[in-house]
Amino acid sequence: MKGNDNTAVLLIHCPDKPGILAVVTEFINQHKGNILYLDQYVNREEGVFFMRVKWELDTFQIPTDKIEEYFETLIATRFNMVYRLYLSDTKPRMAIFVSKMSHCLYDLLARYAADEWHVEIPLIISNHPDMESVAKRFDIPYYVFPITKENKSEQEAKQLALLKEHGVTFCVLARYMQVLSSNFIEHYPNRIINIHHSFLPAFAGAKPYHAAHERGVKVIGATSHYVTTDLDAGPIIDQDVTHISHKDTVEELIKKGRDLEKIVLSHAVEKHIERKILAYKNRTVVFQ
Amino acid sequence: MKGNDNTAVLLIHCPDKPGILAVVTEFINQHKGNILYLDQYVNREEGVFFMRVKWELDTFQIPTDKIEEYFETLIATRFNMVYRLYLSDTKPRMAIFVSKMSHCLYDLLARYAADEWHVEIPLIISNHPDMESVAKRFDIPYYVFPITKENKSEQEAKQLALLKEHGVTFCVLARYMQVLSSNFIEHYPNRIINIHHSFLPAFAGAKPYHAAHERGVKVIGATSHYVTTDLDAGPIIDQDVTHISHKDTVEELIKKGRDLEKIVLSHAVEKHIERKILAYKNRTVVFQ
Amino acid sequence: MKGNDNTAVLLIHCPDKPGILAVVTEFINQHKGNILYLDQYVNREEGVFFMRVKWELDTFQIPTDKIEEYFETLIATRFNMVYRLYLSDTKPRMAIFVSKMSHCLYDLLARYAADEWHVEIPLIISNHPDMESVAKRFDIPYYVFPITKENKSEQEAKQLALLKEHGVTFCVLARYMQVLSSNFIEHYPNRIINIHHSFLPAFAGAKPYHAAHERGVKVIGATSHYVTTDLDAGPIIDQDVTHISHKDTVEELIKKGRDLEKIVLSHAVEKHIERKILAYKNRTVVFQ
Amino acid sequence: MKGNDNTAVLLIHCPDKPGILAVVTEFINQHKGNILYLDQYVNREEGVFFMRVKWELDTFQIPTDKIEEYFETLIATRFNMVYRLYLSDTKPRMAIFVSKMSHCLYDLLARYAADEWHVEIPLIISNHPDMESVAKRFDIPYYVFPITKENKSEQEAKQLALLKEHGVTFCVLARYMQVLSSNFIEHYPNRIINIHHSFLPAFAGAKPYHAAHERGVKVIGATSHYVTTDLDAGPIIDQDVTHISHKDTVEELIKKGRDLEKIVLSHAVEKHIERKILAYKNRTVVFQ
Repeated sequence: MKGNDNTAVLLIHCPDKPGILAVVTEFINQHKGNILYLDQYVNREEGVFFMRVKWELDTFQIPTDKIEEYFETLIATRFNMVYRLYLSDTKPRMAIFVSKMSHCLYDLLARYAADEWHVEIPLIISNHPDMESVAKRFDIPYYVFPITKENKSEQEAKQLALLKEHGVTFCVLARYMQVLSSNFIEHYPNRIINIHHSFLPAFAGAKPYHAAHERGVKVIGATSHYVTTDLDAGPIIDQDVTHISHKDTVEELIKKGRDLEKIVLSHAVEKHIERKILAYKNRTVVFQ
Repeated sequence: MKGNDNTAVLLIHCPDKPGILAVVTEFINQHKGNILYLDQYVNREEGVFFMRVKWELDTFQIPTDKIEEYFETLIATRFNMVYRLYLSDTKPRMAIFVSKMSHCLYDLLARYAADEWHVEIPLIISNHPDMESVAKRFDIPYYVFPITKENKSEQEAKQLALLKEHGVTFCVLARYMQVLSSNFIEHYPNRIINIHHSFLPAFAGAKPYHAAHERGVKVIGATSHYVTTDLDAGPIIDQDVTHISHKDTVEELIKKGRDLEKIVLSHAVEKHIERKILAYKNRTVVFQ
Repeated sequence: MKGNDNTAVLLIHCPDKPGILAVVTEFINQHKGNILYLDQYVNREEGVFFMRVKWELDTFQIPTDKIEEYFETLIATRFNMVYRLYLSDTKPRMAIFVSKMSHCLYDLLARYAADEWHVEIPLIISNHPDMESVAKRFDIPYYVFPITKENKSEQEAKQLALLKEHGVTFCVLARYMQVLSSNFIEHYPNRIINIHHSFLPAFAGAKPYHAAHERGVKVIGATSHYVTTDLDAGPIIDQDVTHISHKDTVEELIKKGRDLEKIVLSHAVEKHIERKILAYKNRTVVFQ
Repeated sequence: MKGNDNTAVLLIHCPDKPGILAVVTEFINQHKGNILYLDQYVNREEGVFFMRVKWELDTFQIPTDKIEEYFETLIATRFNMVYRLYLSDTKPRMAIFVSKMSHCLYDLLARYAADEWHVEIPLIISNHPDMESVAKRFDIPYYVFPITKENKSEQEAKQLALLKEHGVTFCVLARYMQVLSSNFIEHYPNRIINIHHSFLPAFAGAKPYHAAHERGVKVIGATSHYVTTDLDAGPIIDQDVTHISHKDTVEELIKKGRDLEKIVLSHAVEKHIERKILAYKNRTVVFQ
């Protein structure tokens, strides 16, 4: 089980300069923070420094509610940093969006029920009633918002209100077969994770397994990514593939794909929960 | 070492009907052929039967030069078959086309020199002189045909004459950075194997590693396929991928890609030499 | 959903001879059975013929309850065949054995609940009460049999009685942390599927992730296999691996391993349910 | 092509303490070294800090021949470091040992000839004359030392003398089918790279493909590792696997294995040349 620890995570990116790493680690060390993980990466082509550091707060001398202010003042401004501070006592709150297929939903809920993740799942949203029985099995409220062209913006407004009410910090589209509007997406920038059932950018759009079969590819894949207003083109978090042969029908591709989809989606969700993803210029830095 | 055996291979496809498999195996059995491998596959959606059968000729009672005639008369016509008969005493003859990169070329030539394949490589063709030293190491004639817009059809005509002269039965583009004309391709239908340095259909065209890096994918791949007049869209033979991360620069993608490219190309060449590939409607059936 | 079809599957192995394939397909064809899948394989080294054929029974002229008798009389005896006939109207009945971990259990039950498999799961057996809540979520009876050295044979006798009572045809050990006795295993020869959390034969026995970490391997794996009286040495059905690095602690290996375990186990269960596995001499033939 | 740069690489491990990273990066930064890559990893269980840092020397103010002394005095002693400094103007010198198989040898030489690696290969040593023609193709001296029980220590002494004469810094066993003596190995601690044709620790020893076929595994693999006096048990550098099926004969396993072996060996050699491997307690830290 994650999250019983009392820790902080900093995700940082800024123009690369000598000494950044030293300054950040000294900031933590000199105030008696015990660094648990530190990972850094410099994109030399663009001259950008990325860093993730996690440290224990029990002995840290800066009060928890002052860390951000001190870091801002002492370091972030000086190095022109974009950063986020996450404290382990603030649990992320995740909403699942689903349509009619259960495989990704079960995989998420099974991990949640097994307490694998430091997360709360206060609700599930769907455009169909089909998955309500699954939600009930796990005692999670299930809300149905049927979507038509006419009612879409109205329904999304209701969804957003519901998310706000439940304090949702990020959304997971577990094979949710509805395109979200730009307005909706802008409420959760790089905080909506989708699973696409192809190795993007191949076969973007609908019916990728049919397209893959038609093209006669020898591998199929799945892609988890943050949703942006550009359909199926947001920053990729994780991808995996499996080999197929001429013997595989479309139905068999769909079946094999399900196993990819659920694992690739859950891996992305886990990385997000653990604050290991930094989105930058439509790409992701995913720390290990 | 392959090919010292005295065998025949039949590749067949035809409309599916009951009894085809039985009729073909009986044809071989009753004339005392010993079946070594048999693989069949029925595409139920399209109702097409595919088959590969390999048998020993030493005890086979139909004279080698009569097999095709007998099979045609007794079976193929009746079942409306498209088929090809390959005899092990006819070695395939392969021309390699290359530009400036050596990794695929070395991989092909190393296997050839180690006698892994039942094939002859009578010549290497290039649009640049760079790889001549490699060809010399393996004592294979190397012909340079610099290509410009103006001289392309003329140079291709010379290449075709040279291929004919050397009795070439199929061509392998080992990172040959020139698009072949439709005219050239039509001389070798489903007998020109190319390696494309992406998991097609993603990143078709030039500079796929740059495109992959720009898109921020987490897997890169390579695709071997038969060349058709539709660029990068011919029947796919083999694909493989490797995982990458945000740390990989374009240069590192290119380096990692080389290992994929050479293995994926050589696998396709091997399958072709072993008569295990059936191209059908822009897809391939690849028997194991 | 599988199994609404009215079909038969034959799994056969016998000494290889010319004409077996023809005879079996003719048996089906001449009695108006429509072959849906046929896969055959000849082990040339040992001279053994293996075959799986599935056909539609709706138009088949031999009454369902006579197929086995006719096949036995007309073909099986003649060719010295070992065979099994499976009819789609007889649903396999599967018992799950589990201890304290939920990931494999959830994966099996999610597929079952989604009606992916043509199977019944009448009960779950455990040596611990921990997973009862999961069983309840899916409304499946859960029986606890705490095992000690002293009570083992007695408890196993009760388990066997319960399996018999529920008409169980095969068992799945979903991370069941108890070694079954030879007596128990002999009641279900090649019908108990286990998941071992290593790429066997490496790290057989307990604590494979600790052993893998200690040895410093760069891949970890999982193995599904039929249970035999020789611990961790039964016929392997499926294996998969994932790459790891020096950064992975034992805990991270365990976490990464869970995803391998559940997929590799479910694949084996699916193959078993679809009658695609033939065990022969401590190895398996797994048809696609 | 690697190595035209003027750079230094430091590989360090020591007991973990706050501030090590800061002190090392400051040492480089304050003397005007430009850090190109930095990777660090802390083994929290054992409390050990590992680091690799590469920086440009052109502007570095400490004279190249004084870096080691200064680093030792100012930092290494203080933190109880085990470290190695590598300068790009000292090219590693690699000896290849080979027996009768060419696939790994060709893969190494093709990369060498294409100038992919910052390395010199002054000689090839064998216990058989078979590969001399390959060596000749690449104009590399080839020495044959037939080995018998009786002459082994004598022949190894000659080999060691030859390696010394050629200034060899590390050895690569490219399917060299002779066990090296402890005496030989101790001359090149963690500087002899071997390729074993199995996913160790499975199938250690001779004939692993036969053993894998006998056991009926569904994956085969290859392992590159440093040679220690404990046979097939040295620190693992890289491993990879491929899926196989019941259809694969031992010969096909051997063929499929060749592609794994050559790639897994070459990757290990590349990592070694690039100073990215730190061996520690029979395991390796392999920086990316």
